[in-house]
Amino acid sequence: MDATAELLAQAIGTRKNGFNPVQGTGDLGILRGLEKEKLPGAWKTGFKGKIGELEDRLGHLQREAFENKVPVIIVFEGFSASGKGALMNQMLLALDPRGFTVHKIVDPIPGEHFRPFLWRFWTRLPKDGHIAIFDSSWYRRVLKEHVEGGVKEADLPGAYEEIRVFERQLTDAGAIVVKFFLHISKAEQRARFKKLESNLSTSWRVTKEDWKSNQKYDSYVTAIERAIGETERPRAPWALVPAHDDKLAASRIFETLVHAMETRLAEIRHLRKHPAPTPLLEPLPKAHLLDSLDMTKSISREQYKPQLKHYQSRIQELMHWVYLKRIPVVIVYEGVDAGGKGGSIKRLAQKMDPRGYEVIPIAAPDSVEKAHHYLWRFWLRIPKAGHFAIFDRSWYGRVLVERVEGFATEPEWKRAYQEIREFEQSLLNAGCMVFKFWFHISKEEQLRRFEARQRNPAKQWKITEEDWRNREKWDVHMRAAEEMIQRTSLPEAPWVLLEANSKEYTRIKVLRTVVEALEKRLLQ
Amino acid sequence: MDATAELLAQAIGTRKNGFNPVQGTGDLGILRGLEKEKLPGAWKTGFKGKIGELEDRLGHLQREAFENKVPVIIVFEGFSASGKGALMNQMLLALDPRGFTVHKIVDPIPGEHFRPFLWRFWTRLPKDGHIAIFDSSWYRRVLKEHVEGGVKEADLPGAYEEIRVFERQLTDAGAIVVKFFLHISKAEQRARFKKLESNLSTSWRVTKEDWKSNQKYDSYVTAIERAIGETERPRAPWALVPAHDDKLAASRIFETLVHAMETRLAEIRHLRKHPAPTPLLEPLPKAHLLDSLDMTKSISREQYKPQLKHYQSRIQELMHWVYLKRIPVVIVYEGVDAGGKGGSIKRLAQKMDPRGYEVIPIAAPDSVEKAHHYLWRFWLRIPKAGHFAIFDRSWYGRVLVERVEGFATEPEWKRAYQEIREFEQSLLNAGCMVFKFWFHISKEEQLRRFEARQRNPAKQWKITEEDWRNREKWDVHMRAAEEMIQRTSLPEAPWVLLEANSKEYTRIKVLRTVVEALEKRLLQ
Repeated sequence: MDATAELLAQAIGTRKNGFNPVQGTGDLGILRGLEKEKLPGAWKTGFKGKIGELEDRLGHLQREAFENKVPVIIVFEGFSASGKGALMNQMLLALDPRGFTVHKIVDPIPGEHFRPFLWRFWTRLPKDGHIAIFDSSWYRRVLKEHVEGGVKEADLPGAYEEIRVFERQLTDAGAIVVKFFLHISKAEQRARFKKLESNLSTSWRVTKEDWKSNQKYDSYVTAIERAIGETERPRAPWALVPAHDDKLAASRIFETLVHAMETRLAEIRHLRKHPAPTPLLEPLPKAHLLDSLDMTKSISREQYKPQLKHYQSRIQELMHWVYLKRIPVVIVYEGVDAGGKGGSIKRLAQKMDPRGYEVIPIAAPDSVEKAHHYLWRFWLRIPKAGHFAIFDRSWYGRVLVERVEGFATEPEWKRAYQEIREFEQSLLNAGCMVFKFWFHISKEEQLRRFEARQRNPAKQWKITEEDWRNREKWDVHMRAAEEMIQRTSLPEAPWVLLEANSKEYTRIKVLRTVVEALEKRLLQ
Repeated sequence: MDATAELLAQAIGTRKNGFNPVQGTGDLGILRGLEKEKLPGAWKTGFKGKIGELEDRLGHLQREAFENKVPVIIVFEGFSASGKGALMNQMLLALDPRGFTVHKIVDPIPGEHFRPFLWRFWTRLPKDGHIAIFDSSWYRRVLKEHVEGGVKEADLPGAYEEIRVFERQLTDAGAIVVKFFLHISKAEQRARFKKLESNLSTSWRVTKEDWKSNQKYDSYVTAIERAIGETERPRAPWALVPAHDDKLAASRIFETLVHAMETRLAEIRHLRKHPAPTPLLEPLPKAHLLDSLDMTKSISREQYKPQLKHYQSRIQELMHWVYLKRIPVVIVYEGVDAGGKGGSIKRLAQKMDPRGYEVIPIAAPDSVEKAHHYLWRFWLRIPKAGHFAIFDRSWYGRVLVERVEGFATEPEWKRAYQEIREFEQSLLNAGCMVFKFWFHISKEEQLRRFEARQRNPAKQWKITEEDWRNREKWDVHMRAAEEMIQRTSLPEAPWVLLEANSKEYTRIKVLRTVVEALEKRLLQ
């Protein structure tokens, strides 16, 4: 245990001091160091009792995580033939099956392939209080897919950054993350393959791919040691498991997992009682972006009709190219109540092919969504490459209504600006186009629209008590919107502010913005 | 409208009188009859106004379905180039996007391919009050997949039976189901393909496959007319749409949908106030299956250990063959509280490869599950072919705890026997092995185990007030179990009754039952 920790500390120290595994020897000895380890004497004589005790503690910790609504994410990576299946199973049998799910990760299927690479992991995250066990994981991206050549060297820094962000976002929200790597030496692997092959009933288990991976063993070592260095963090620690001896491996897995869960649960419970100070955000210049909009902008009826027709048929055409070029498109609609989002979405989608777009209305989260990271339900709805997702309200609820109404704590919504930028960066990295529209109307115009809705029997259902309550907090909402716009305008995903007092003007501006950006992108 | 209804009535009449489309001419004229239809004069002059009115009514019906928690399922099938996309979109834009989802159905992906063919439709069913629109659907199985040769003639009767059962189960539970078929003639299709090809910006939309389907046009007509005859039912009606004229098609779609939803909503509301009489079930012989079990059965410690080891390693071996032969395996654990299910699952799974099995504990449904058909959450968890799913409690809750506690109404649980048999039949049709174990212990043995749990601090959490309450209703539970066993023992999926007073005896019997059945199946 200590030996591993020490080697690890060395590796991380090395990295901080300019460690560059790519140009190095490819073997830092972090893994090799495990091969000498032996099962301690006390374990040799009392294995059953000791394991039994740890199993009980693990069962107890699972219930504690459940009661505290803490989600637990356990990663199993390791060399082929390291005995991962049997060791995982031993761990699983100590757990209450009502609380865990095993996710076997293989090559992405089409629906996964056409989305950011973390999509299939975000969507598989456990509910609060539950355990998700990943048999292979997002590290596949930087291990197998890299070594086999699918992911180029130049893509690695980006992939690592996304992995770090992913794990940080999870642990910041109070998840437990533990990552195992099961190690055996190249010779041991070869010996195990041969033993399996020599037995008729197990020989089919050794594939050509396995033998190839044995040949590339050293490249895997380089990749793994780099992965450890890049992603080792106290809240998402790696546990390196010497797997040449089953019992040693089992003892290590149980000990580490129990220790990691106990430590993190203690930390999480402490932080709930004594929250860390709210992060300081960079001070913003007083920009008055919303107040300085020219709200008189409009368009004549004569101009509106032909322009509407023109841009709608343009979108219809461009949509096919977006599909053929497999560009994912995300369009976010946010804005003042009664700002005209619905009517604009209708005009945007009117000539679209319904097989290629989806309107995703966002309301308060349901009970299942509430039991996940707040970004989870948005990750679920990321469009496939080639498709449009139109979000009628979005993840920005975190820094708008959830901030104003206190559904998110101050540290939570303050942290969210960065998390949202990172989320959108993941979309951009995957080639996604991201549009963000803010529908702005004046306070007087809103009143006019509210009253008109209330007079119209066919539209009365559209206006609720909540709308009137929100209106009373107009200034607070505007302050939140102003801050959001300033903190989350990315160069590639800027906010487009709409002077929305004129519905026709706004509809054309949305259509034109989308059409022109699509044209530009398609001509690249 | 009337013309269609008449033709349809004829077709169904014909079928009832021994209609056999396979040996027939392949063209009953049901579809051909649509080609002569014209947009009525009143529509020609007032199209916009009439459509607008229907759009408003549709929006209103959507809200009504939402308030009444009625799920709506709309199927769109049709010939290529019939204008399905644009027509669907016109309908979608009349709906509130907060309440519908479009499912574009293409060839099954691996996860779908390895499950019963209805799996991907069950899992996409809408929540209560929501609308699911299927752009192509389960009818793909008996249309495209049949005409293109993937689904043989001999498989059709089974497929139709499953489709009828599927739609009947949905409508029995109060769903609205409407099915559209968009028709154009062979010549019209060819003309549309040519027109699309003549324009540079649309030519790529016509594929080789499209032209092939035009050549097979007549086979499609045969297939579709058969599908209509096989699956036309008042509660899941087909609406045939003459699509040679866009406006005629739109008018037909809106009229039919509004009419169908209004009719069904009225029926559903009526049935909620005046339920149909509870269905009569066949009277059962007094079998006393549970009372006549020999509860003294046991096994000695000396026999237990080697047998446990033997069967566990057998399962470990057989599991690989099950995977290679792609056999899905479902194992249901039901029984008396404290009957030893947990301990038995542990022994069953101890040597299994965790990549190949999943333990699925079933508790009370959560809010999302409650808002779906009660079988939905079990369909979700059907294992992939080659994998084991071990259900710790199951769909039998419907006729056990839900019956006893009144969570299901009498008509609901009485209907469930047939629905459960049909569900398991779907599994069997897909090649699944289905095991059902009933863990039976005597009332005295249960008391002994409850008290032992309460004395053991590590196991106290396992026993709750609810367990004691259930125990008070022992006789009622036993009556429900007895009836369930008699009504749901299928020849290929019989109940295995376990004399479970001896834990060791029971564990071996479960293991032996599974091992022997797997061996038999694998040797077939």
